[in-house]
Amino acid sequence: MKNIKLSALQENEKTIVHVGHVRVGDGFCVIAGPCSVENEKQTIETAEAVKEGGANMLRGGAFKPRTSPYAFQGLGLKGLKILKKAREETGLPIVTEVIDTRDVPWVAEYADVLQIGARNMQNFSLLKEVGKTQKPVLLKRGMNSTIEEWLNCAEYILDGGNPDVILCERGIRTFETYTRNTLDISAVPALKELTHLPVIIDPSHACGRVSLIPSLSFAAVASGADGLMIEVHVNPLEAICDKEQALTPAQFGTMMEKIRVLHQFVSDSL
Amino acid sequence: MKNIKLSALQENEKTIVHVGHVRVGDGFCVIAGPCSVENEKQTIETAEAVKEGGANMLRGGAFKPRTSPYAFQGLGLKGLKILKKAREETGLPIVTEVIDTRDVPWVAEYADVLQIGARNMQNFSLLKEVGKTQKPVLLKRGMNSTIEEWLNCAEYILDGGNPDVILCERGIRTFETYTRNTLDISAVPALKELTHLPVIIDPSHACGRVSLIPSLSFAAVASGADGLMIEVHVNPLEAICDKEQALTPAQFGTMMEKIRVLHQFVSDSL
Amino acid sequence: MKNIKLSALQENEKTIVHVGHVRVGDGFCVIAGPCSVENEKQTIETAEAVKEGGANMLRGGAFKPRTSPYAFQGLGLKGLKILKKAREETGLPIVTEVIDTRDVPWVAEYADVLQIGARNMQNFSLLKEVGKTQKPVLLKRGMNSTIEEWLNCAEYILDGGNPDVILCERGIRTFETYTRNTLDISAVPALKELTHLPVIIDPSHACGRVSLIPSLSFAAVASGADGLMIEVHVNPLEAICDKEQALTPAQFGTMMEKIRVLHQFVSDSL
Amino acid sequence: MKNIKLSALQENEKTIVHVGHVRVGDGFCVIAGPCSVENEKQTIETAEAVKEGGANMLRGGAFKPRTSPYAFQGLGLKGLKILKKAREETGLPIVTEVIDTRDVPWVAEYADVLQIGARNMQNFSLLKEVGKTQKPVLLKRGMNSTIEEWLNCAEYILDGGNPDVILCERGIRTFETYTRNTLDISAVPALKELTHLPVIIDPSHACGRVSLIPSLSFAAVASGADGLMIEVHVNPLEAICDKEQALTPAQFGTMMEKIRVLHQFVSDSL
Repeated sequence: MKNIKLSALQENEKTIVHVGHVRVGDGFCVIAGPCSVENEKQTIETAEAVKEGGANMLRGGAFKPRTSPYAFQGLGLKGLKILKKAREETGLPIVTEVIDTRDVPWVAEYADVLQIGARNMQNFSLLKEVGKTQKPVLLKRGMNSTIEEWLNCAEYILDGGNPDVILCERGIRTFETYTRNTLDISAVPALKELTHLPVIIDPSHACGRVSLIPSLSFAAVASGADGLMIEVHVNPLEAICDKEQALTPAQFGTMMEKIRVLHQFVSDSL
Repeated sequence: MKNIKLSALQENEKTIVHVGHVRVGDGFCVIAGPCSVENEKQTIETAEAVKEGGANMLRGGAFKPRTSPYAFQGLGLKGLKILKKAREETGLPIVTEVIDTRDVPWVAEYADVLQIGARNMQNFSLLKEVGKTQKPVLLKRGMNSTIEEWLNCAEYILDGGNPDVILCERGIRTFETYTRNTLDISAVPALKELTHLPVIIDPSHACGRVSLIPSLSFAAVASGADGLMIEVHVNPLEAICDKEQALTPAQFGTMMEKIRVLHQFVSDSL
Repeated sequence: MKNIKLSALQENEKTIVHVGHVRVGDGFCVIAGPCSVENEKQTIETAEAVKEGGANMLRGGAFKPRTSPYAFQGLGLKGLKILKKAREETGLPIVTEVIDTRDVPWVAEYADVLQIGARNMQNFSLLKEVGKTQKPVLLKRGMNSTIEEWLNCAEYILDGGNPDVILCERGIRTFETYTRNTLDISAVPALKELTHLPVIIDPSHACGRVSLIPSLSFAAVASGADGLMIEVHVNPLEAICDKEQALTPAQFGTMMEKIRVLHQFVSDSL
Repeated sequence: MKNIKLSALQENEKTIVHVGHVRVGDGFCVIAGPCSVENEKQTIETAEAVKEGGANMLRGGAFKPRTSPYAFQGLGLKGLKILKKAREETGLPIVTEVIDTRDVPWVAEYADVLQIGARNMQNFSLLKEVGKTQKPVLLKRGMNSTIEEWLNCAEYILDGGNPDVILCERGIRTFETYTRNTLDISAVPALKELTHLPVIIDPSHACGRVSLIPSLSFAAVASGADGLMIEVHVNPLEAICDKEQALTPAQFGTMMEKIRVLHQFVSDSL
């Protein structure tokens, strides 16, 4: 990456992305919530639970990029309205995915952070479109993408005039099958030496197994990540998607207590 | 893939995609042309050269999905107009990529076949949009996508009401660095037992080296592929992109003579 | 690979490996037989069947590197004696694997070609040991090895004083799960431009599915490979290992008829 | 891995591997030292430095599995004698690699822990041979091996009668090129739920870059690993191999201070 001249590489100061009162890149930020918005009750209850657990933002998908056309595709506008209500109830900013250039303007009216999913990381038209908005963008790494390609995608957004990009490592595709993907924890220190943008980890999609999420979250904190994105569902057994990787509110709360003290220790002592 | 019920799996008869007088899936179809439309002279000359070499269709990109935002992004509408002129001059149908849902309707007025590139294979909004058109779709395999995921993407198009999908294997991402990607030749017989859709091979992107393209093309014919997609440029040294993998018209012509006799032999004798 | 000075890269003339009357690298060579030597009857019958089908050499494992210590580990010396008898009955030279430096001297007394398996490709002690023998070596590519690493392993053998190395591509490990491994067909033309050593293809281990083996074999012929290594079993359903990828003698015979005419055509016309 | 019955999976109690006064699997164990034993001065000085930094054992290779036959292959017996002297001087137990079945008996006389390297993970003859010794074995994960295959290799050793196996994750091969390999941090919690054997991390080989090693080491501690294996050289610029990934004694000492307090915190609070 020696000869690349990218804004994503060149700032002297670390970028802090402001989302309401949340400052991503300054302290530790946890985004939590369900994979998809299924209905108002599930979303509001989960939002309240993750707030109580200590989350800083609420995640939830209204548009779901699904492998099969016959799988649940999300509630669309109805889902966004539910998310808006969840924000009103809890005060948590909303992180939600946008998957079509045509939807960017109106999704941006509901979202506090626009998420670009792994499958769309190199959807350059979409990157250019979110680059035109004033909303922070959470850019997930493509599951087959190198760090260099990823930073070039961030550059599409920065080059469009939007400086507020949060990078999210969510596991890459390898031959290993015990985990859903392979969390590339090295991406955290690698990005810390390459870019000024904040970096968070999504252990839920990376491993796909509830039992591994706490350990990977602790590893993320210790590696220097700026935050986490965690799937939580009030009733994982009934989740429409990703039920194997959604924590219960109780599991999330227990984990968060440890994350808080660990992050405090890491900030003070490492 | 045992439990999947997809239209892409269920037909008894092999699909033949009609593009003008070309019948993809019946006989052997060769799509050739430059990576990108650079100007009228380059495009028309290349079109005439590949026609003389025996190509059945002309490829050429007007919208280029590029790793970096600072790389050449294509000529857009101007490029489509040049392609239209090339079709008028040569009679060759045009295969060209579309990368944004908003562009599908008007790109479809210029293109004879709409190409979905590897980076957009799981851009489900785009798949749905081309599924609404009457134009055949050439669906490239994502460089990190399984055959099962690929067939599900074809299903998005079929499910939208468009039965004319051509699958194009273009190499997958592996650890090997001698070649740009790794051509998964097994995908040809695998798809032949899984789906009724025609399957072609793009050896140019798969290997990224001119010297390997003829051997891989012969392998594609022998494996039972329905066609090839080949990058040809009147002056590869001056090509704006992918110059290492573009054949000259002379190289293309020599290769095509061999492909013709090999395909005839394979059809008659294997 | 520009700066590497290896004997494997430097000869002007193509190496022809002589195994009895068989000349690997001159014409097309087919090595066939069971994954493992199970008993005398199975081995002799399979040997006679593959000879009738047109095979040039017999393969069969007496030492099996198995993932689990509780899986069948091979018959050892008893297996080698059965192979010797099969050679006496059919005249076919024997290709068999050696997996321990201590076994090389006495296995070399039974084998006509010493096979180094994929899992031992970088067992450098073993490479050095077979490099000291006078017996040709069939060197399989490691399932995670680059072409450059593979050629360096050949160099260990050449450097030991043994010039007779046959390279065998048997599939690399990728994310695709429909096939057991991914056949890297590009390795054939790549090796043809890099080295003077003969190159053969093992489609049986590469794909792990009987139904795909003929198409991949035809692709191997067309790509310029010097031969094939094929698993054949008189009764695949009762095979101790790899039953999903073993052809019956009838399937092998039918495929071989086509391979003969295809190779003849390729030699004359491409 | 549901149906596998392996000793590596079945114990109720966590295995603690005793190496002199060191108890691997109880507390946190750090193995440090040079990639290869180059001479007495370099080895003794590095040994003293890593002891001062807080290492529990000394690593150093006398037999080096090298990609090229023309690269430095290690000092052999002379190297083992130097390691023995380093143990006498510092009291640190010695971890050293064995690569040939014939060497196991006499290398075991010098080593306190026998290392099986990544390239030999599936050298089943070697696994069986170290399984017959009374010496603990450090089993590195093959760079293309699944967790299931790795545990089966541990089983070869356990099945041979040797219960003292330490698993060492050292990065897997992926498409990413910024790091030498990709550290699979998920392997730590995965193995903690699958096996009773201790698990350590080798961040030096995993990332291949000095600058990333501290962060990955902290992540290893937080993920629950039982220890680390770290490359240290008194003068990395003059190291014969792996100079890009060797810490200086000063870097190692600084990192170790942090690791100690982090491990204490993790033990008390997570």
